[in-house]
Amino acid sequence: MTNRIYVIGVDFGTESGRAVLVDVADGKELATAVYKYAYGVIDEALPVEGSPVRLEPDWALQDPEDYLRTFKHTVPAVLRQSGVDPADVVGVGIDFTACTMLPVLADGTPLCTLPEQRRNPHAWVKLWKHHAAQPEADKINATARRMGEAWLDRYGGKISSEWFFSKTLQILDEAPEIYSAADRLLEAADWVVWQLTGVETRNSCTAGYKAMWSKREGFPKEAYFAALDPRLARVVDEKLSRRISSIGDRAGYLTSQAAKWTGLKPGTAVAVANVDAHVSVPAATVTGPGRMVAIMGTSTCHMVLGAEERLVPGICGYVEDGIIPGLFGFEAGQSGVGDIFAWFVDNAVPGGYYAAARKAKVDIHTLLEQEAAKLKPGESGLLALDWWNGNRSVLVDVDLTGLLIGATLATKAPEIYRALIEATAFGTRAIIDSFEKNGVPVNELVTCGGLPEKNKLLMQIYADVTGVELKVTASKQTPALGSAMFGAVAAGRGAGGYASIFDAAKRMARLKAETFKPVPEHQKIYDRLYAEYLALHDYFGRGANDVMKRLKQMKKETFTA
Amino acid sequence: MTNRIYVIGVDFGTESGRAVLVDVADGKELATAVYKYAYGVIDEALPVEGSPVRLEPDWALQDPEDYLRTFKHTVPAVLRQSGVDPADVVGVGIDFTACTMLPVLADGTPLCTLPEQRRNPHAWVKLWKHHAAQPEADKINATARRMGEAWLDRYGGKISSEWFFSKTLQILDEAPEIYSAADRLLEAADWVVWQLTGVETRNSCTAGYKAMWSKREGFPKEAYFAALDPRLARVVDEKLSRRISSIGDRAGYLTSQAAKWTGLKPGTAVAVANVDAHVSVPAATVTGPGRMVAIMGTSTCHMVLGAEERLVPGICGYVEDGIIPGLFGFEAGQSGVGDIFAWFVDNAVPGGYYAAARKAKVDIHTLLEQEAAKLKPGESGLLALDWWNGNRSVLVDVDLTGLLIGATLATKAPEIYRALIEATAFGTRAIIDSFEKNGVPVNELVTCGGLPEKNKLLMQIYADVTGVELKVTASKQTPALGSAMFGAVAAGRGAGGYASIFDAAKRMARLKAETFKPVPEHQKIYDRLYAEYLALHDYFGRGANDVMKRLKQMKKETFTA
Repeated sequence: MTNRIYVIGVDFGTESGRAVLVDVADGKELATAVYKYAYGVIDEALPVEGSPVRLEPDWALQDPEDYLRTFKHTVPAVLRQSGVDPADVVGVGIDFTACTMLPVLADGTPLCTLPEQRRNPHAWVKLWKHHAAQPEADKINATARRMGEAWLDRYGGKISSEWFFSKTLQILDEAPEIYSAADRLLEAADWVVWQLTGVETRNSCTAGYKAMWSKREGFPKEAYFAALDPRLARVVDEKLSRRISSIGDRAGYLTSQAAKWTGLKPGTAVAVANVDAHVSVPAATVTGPGRMVAIMGTSTCHMVLGAEERLVPGICGYVEDGIIPGLFGFEAGQSGVGDIFAWFVDNAVPGGYYAAARKAKVDIHTLLEQEAAKLKPGESGLLALDWWNGNRSVLVDVDLTGLLIGATLATKAPEIYRALIEATAFGTRAIIDSFEKNGVPVNELVTCGGLPEKNKLLMQIYADVTGVELKVTASKQTPALGSAMFGAVAAGRGAGGYASIFDAAKRMARLKAETFKPVPEHQKIYDRLYAEYLALHDYFGRGANDVMKRLKQMKKETFTA
Repeated sequence: MTNRIYVIGVDFGTESGRAVLVDVADGKELATAVYKYAYGVIDEALPVEGSPVRLEPDWALQDPEDYLRTFKHTVPAVLRQSGVDPADVVGVGIDFTACTMLPVLADGTPLCTLPEQRRNPHAWVKLWKHHAAQPEADKINATARRMGEAWLDRYGGKISSEWFFSKTLQILDEAPEIYSAADRLLEAADWVVWQLTGVETRNSCTAGYKAMWSKREGFPKEAYFAALDPRLARVVDEKLSRRISSIGDRAGYLTSQAAKWTGLKPGTAVAVANVDAHVSVPAATVTGPGRMVAIMGTSTCHMVLGAEERLVPGICGYVEDGIIPGLFGFEAGQSGVGDIFAWFVDNAVPGGYYAAARKAKVDIHTLLEQEAAKLKPGESGLLALDWWNGNRSVLVDVDLTGLLIGATLATKAPEIYRALIEATAFGTRAIIDSFEKNGVPVNELVTCGGLPEKNKLLMQIYADVTGVELKVTASKQTPALGSAMFGAVAAGRGAGGYASIFDAAKRMARLKAETFKPVPEHQKIYDRLYAEYLALHDYFGRGANDVMKRLKQMKKETFTA
């Protein structure tokens, strides 16, 4: 028996970080460890001494020290649990939420760790769901439209308030002293890789999806940034970098200090950073066109690869080398999925169902799934628009809201639950249709995330509604596995890893044997329901009746009145 | 002190009958007694001996003996409670649900009491909510349209499956032997008056609202009935009567037998029968044009008087002498109001709100009302169409369904509760608008029934939405009081009663001091919300998008598949 070789993937989530130690030969996961961030999501007050520093609504920050603590806790833990010799660990990969960004000094020191900046909220890490930069996003979009910036089309015509330059511009607007003190502005993903390797690198995934960069055209031109704010004209050269490393490359090697933190050997290969959703694609066995990956949790990310550049209206964006080197990575999304079901069980399910669930010793979602599974497609007479959290793709409109139609005095909670699942499935079909209509084929759906694990009815409904076969990743921690795979590619074949992510995916990624195939009789009914969904989708979503926006406007007025 | 004079009103409801003994001078209610029908609503199997006789879905029957038992229990009880001398009771009035009808022999004997007919469901009383005659109603409507029958317009263009000839035709279709054995077919309202007086009379209210009769034109012509079914050609002359007694007239005098049942004196005046909703109008102090009476419970009936004949699209009907002699009585309705709120608390309110209600020692509606009252108009961002039980007025379409729009992940149950209340208020405004647009003014809304007693927030919302002042009847048993008032009119002035219902209303009917006036700032917001409601109302209700009907159709298909 030859010596076995291992890699470690570290997945930085919203509330915690997780390491997984994986066998390079077959992707087997030997050990997992989770570190719950000490300060989690900072959205009320900064964790500082002295008088409290309160945050405004919509703010969401993090402490970069939590990321280092993640390395220090989880990597030693998986080594210990597995009993693997650190010398046999040849590579490390990381993935992160995005856009999660921070200002640092030239040596990588986060500004929020400096005593003189520590009480300034803008010195801290802005988490992906920091939503306070909407005015800046509006300015970015309006300016780009006015100047006819072509790159805007790559993002479905709209830059999000969550993205890199919205957050950057907010720092400049509200804390110019922080902007000025920052030698570098970068994604936390790249910052943690810098901490591991001692070398600043910037990955093509976040640069492309979150910072308006493209492989062929680079960043937007200086004149555009100057139009946003003269002080921003040279932001790329002053605070970022034009050297973008492709996903799948090696960022560098573990420093002695990082080796001490982790218990790994100095010189262990470290992959270029990646994003949680995107890194899941090869871990879901997908390395080529035609197979969509859906990461389904509170919201859903849809990833699909294409050999050619295509403009697909209403998607989040596409990036060459953004997911798999050499291919265009297309990303779309549904802003509310599991969140809607969670809202429903918290806000609209009577106590009797909870009592029944307790009696049956199942959770409330399982109970409702069991009841909803007794219904045939069309039987509830209900139809919903899945816009409880707005619509990301393909309408790109946060001001759209949820709708339920067809209620009668006989309507029961499991019927509504099923209608909500169906609505999210129709939303996915609308995304697939948009891709296919614009030359990006989708023949299969590979799913991962929390929902596919938990809800078989949902999976069957998605298959019946979309008309494509659904598969599920074998790993329950797909992003961490994906990071480990990129760690194996960073190590390279010579060190026992792989020459490319394609090779790594062939050996390390697996799907479950069980799949979900469309049932033709169900498809017939869902085709009719989908036609009804689309009619309402276009009526309420494309300007025929903007009642949802006017209701939101009236709601806002009551708060300002 | 002069001798006080009394009258008794008996109100026959769906589950029980109730008598109230009232002082003629001032309408003071001295005693009330309720008899819960022994057989209630018979909707599963006939209460007969031997092998069970099961009923089909949508059937709803009653036992006429329950009506006699109501007299025998309640009238002696109110005499006993009040200590009033039967000699001082000068009149009796009754009101009934409608159309509630039965087949009887020439002497008034119900067919269902005959051993040879007792096991035939068609021999029993068909209750107002017997819904199994839809095919017959469809035929009645289609035939009338084909033949250009002008009377159809008086009923908003549609005869209900609940009405007299739909039920009659169902008997003929399904049990011609019962049709043939019946010497008379009549409203239970008229049957109980017959039992009291020994004389068959037929009242102008049910004849007009439920049996296509009008004071000026009588019943539809023989050719029309013959077109429905040749055997039905002479139905009016063979089974009904062309002699219709006006509301407000005296039907006759108590027989010795009825005097024995009730403990009243033989010869006591008995009023022509009336309908529960309609009899409430003068009891709500309304005897002239311009003031709408809304009887608000599980559903809402809207009554308004007019001096002139007007065609108002989408109302249930109008009848000369139908409510108050000498005036046109217009009736409209909302098929789901309290029923929708009941559906909501049963099917969509989490246990936490019930726990809070228990803690606060209030019922769930009160708790939700208190929470909803904290919201400003427009604050929830929600809007609903109140069609959980279809739409009676002004769209006259049972296949319309409920809709909720504007839901977000932050939406809470009290917000939905308020949106549902608002939706029913918008529905009432649509009815008022239809009346006003067609020449029937509505300047004030007098309410009675269960809801106005219970929910002040609802009353304020109705005032704010409709822009008219809302008042509430002082009596909690408005229909029984109304019947007592008609009893006083039947007795006449000579016997200590009144010469007319106008006089009776002036003395015996009262409103509460508290009224609900529109708040101008609320009206401004509700005007905007109502415009949104109307746009959706017309879009979904007038053919632009018949998705509700198609969803219902698909639902039906799953049951037949």
